[in-house]
Amino acid sequence: MATHKLLLLPGDGIGPEVMGEVKRLIDWLNSAGIAKFETDTGLVGGAAYDAHKVSISEGDMAKAKDADAVIFGAVGGPKWDAVPYEVRPEAGLLRLRKDLALFANLRPAVCYPALADASSLKREAVEGLDIVIVRELTGGVYFGEPKTITDLGNGQKRAIDTQVYDTYEIERIARVAFELAKKRKNKVTSMEKRNVMKSGVLWNEVVTQVHKREYPDVTLEHQLADSGGMMLVKWPKQFDVIVTDNLFGDMLSDIAAMLTGSLGMLPSASLGEVDVKSKKRKALYEPVHGSAPDIAGKGLANPIAMISSFGMALRYSFDMGDLADKVDAAIAAVLASGLRTADIKSEGTTAASTTQMGEAILKEL
Amino acid sequence: MATHKLLLLPGDGIGPEVMGEVKRLIDWLNSAGIAKFETDTGLVGGAAYDAHKVSISEGDMAKAKDADAVIFGAVGGPKWDAVPYEVRPEAGLLRLRKDLALFANLRPAVCYPALADASSLKREAVEGLDIVIVRELTGGVYFGEPKTITDLGNGQKRAIDTQVYDTYEIERIARVAFELAKKRKNKVTSMEKRNVMKSGVLWNEVVTQVHKREYPDVTLEHQLADSGGMMLVKWPKQFDVIVTDNLFGDMLSDIAAMLTGSLGMLPSASLGEVDVKSKKRKALYEPVHGSAPDIAGKGLANPIAMISSFGMALRYSFDMGDLADKVDAAIAAVLASGLRTADIKSEGTTAASTTQMGEAILKEL
Ligand SMILES: CC(C)[C@H](C(=O)O)[C@@H](O)C(=O)O
Ligand SMILES: CC(C)[C@H](C(=O)O)[C@@H](O)C(=O)O
Repeated sequence: MATHKLLLLPGDGIGPEVMGEVKRLIDWLNSAGIAKFETDTGLVGGAAYDAHKVSISEGDMAKAKDADAVIFGAVGGPKWDAVPYEVRPEAGLLRLRKDLALFANLRPAVCYPALADASSLKREAVEGLDIVIVRELTGGVYFGEPKTITDLGNGQKRAIDTQVYDTYEIERIARVAFELAKKRKNKVTSMEKRNVMKSGVLWNEVVTQVHKREYPDVTLEHQLADSGGMMLVKWPKQFDVIVTDNLFGDMLSDIAAMLTGSLGMLPSASLGEVDVKSKKRKALYEPVHGSAPDIAGKGLANPIAMISSFGMALRYSFDMGDLADKVDAAIAAVLASGLRTADIKSEGTTAASTTQMGEAILKEL
Repeated sequence: MATHKLLLLPGDGIGPEVMGEVKRLIDWLNSAGIAKFETDTGLVGGAAYDAHKVSISEGDMAKAKDADAVIFGAVGGPKWDAVPYEVRPEAGLLRLRKDLALFANLRPAVCYPALADASSLKREAVEGLDIVIVRELTGGVYFGEPKTITDLGNGQKRAIDTQVYDTYEIERIARVAFELAKKRKNKVTSMEKRNVMKSGVLWNEVVTQVHKREYPDVTLEHQLADSGGMMLVKWPKQFDVIVTDNLFGDMLSDIAAMLTGSLGMLPSASLGEVDVKSKKRKALYEPVHGSAPDIAGKGLANPIAMISSFGMALRYSFDMGDLADKVDAAIAAVLASGLRTADIKSEGTTAASTTQMGEAILKEL
């Protein structure tokens, strides 16, 4: 059995707690002889700042590059609001994405039937929802230069951010979206603002070409990102795979996540290019939710998004689709049994702490 | 009685139809001696392209600058998808905003009680919703330079858009938001991505300073734009006034509009600075909805957003708040009577064409 190297980066807030439940699952997989994971742990975000005054240390970056997959908790919190911009908690996550070249961020938005009523949307609008946002993750306004604040004198400053996209960056993310759609409902919706942004014009053009050249059998639709956001709120089930840039993807995937009523439940995968030689790809898995400092350390956090992110690692990094299916089924079964963490608690269900939820899922497995 | 000069720019798609109902209202106000409006009409968007191969002619731009207010319909449609970028329909609207220096875009998102069920959100989440998005409209990535597509050779192109904000641009839009909040629930939520964008850092800093210096009695909250979007979907009633940049404002205001279930009902005002001498300000009023080419010319369009935009003109440009209130009340009364255009039709209500709706509102007045 091959040994897989994992780097666990719990981060801040509820990160360590939810990561604990993944650790429990990994330990069990190892001891039951189902898989062989070698885990190391590092610091990221505020935790790294408190220890080393950086958002991630060079040592941990090296470990991340060396690992077969990075399992990431969450970063940030008011405690670090005043730290310098360069070493703010989020910088650690952004560096991991950029230096590992994790250009493809997959964010499924799935509505668990047991939770359909937790959505602010009507049940009929979200029940059975199953879409994926494919977000470009290493380009756009997140990383483009110049990115500066200049003092103009007279109390005036000028802030500049730069949105940059090259053809190849759009091509490779489009391919990820089309490949994914082929295994799903065979439909891709590309979203940009071509009526206002030149990057939107190029985005539209390149996605159209990739489609024509390589994936003519997949249905492709184009939406302006603003009306796409509207349609997501109005009737999300019309979508299958949505492909969009880094900033629109940030907004749209958060909104899609919120629609499901299951924010504490949603995982994400950030993937690099497949290496032609080793056939491996760099990857980082993280829950869509944030560090939720207000409930940290209280055993209130929902570990499902984190466990489900690890499930994505099994599927995308370790070719253990069957095991990933079992993890998903265990989560569904525990939910069906009525167990709920505080964020998804409703009348007639049974309250569970972070640990109780993790243990219940493990038992189901 | 002072004469007010209006320029009507119906534009494309359903624009001319819904503008027709405003025209009807203006004619009545004139003939009943309630007000004195002098109207002129121009072409914008695809209509201007078809006539003059531009998105707005210099003659119409001059008329817009000369008018006390511009009443704008909607622009765009698949017919003009292939026209050159510089003369695409949207360019006419963007030029109006920029050349008239209409930096403050006010977009109320109000849920009409009679329509609460038309929302994809649960009734309790939207009933009674009354928020305003204050969107910066002449800066940011919409207008920043460079804004280019460059051929890099080898089949590669590079697209660049530039987000630029200066202190004074953020200050003046923040003031509009705080002033508005003072007349409402006294709360402003500022949204940006300071964890990723330098413009977000400056935005946050400047709004905080304006608050401290000039509006300490208004409650100010800061939200990251992505989680702000989430909270808008989850529980929109937590907001009063939201102030944000051009691109986030585009996305967030469309989503807010969709929440209400009343997209065909929502007006907007785009305002310039008040001139110290004349005490006048340039202004453009337009519905939030688009040109809806699929239903154009069929008498199906809902004229309420357009009429309500004219109501905003009465309020913000002509100091006729009482008359504006009457227009709002007439709209509410007609809705309460059960009259509905196709977009908001539900069981047990009476179908109305664009014209029938316009006439009913006028009759109510
Ligand atoms: C933490 C932050 C930098 C990040 C982003 O903006 O990408 C987060 O919002 C996300 O969506 O993963
Ligand atoms: C038509 C388009 C240029 C415009 C924008 O992006 O600002 C529209 O979406 C709006 O919100 O008014």
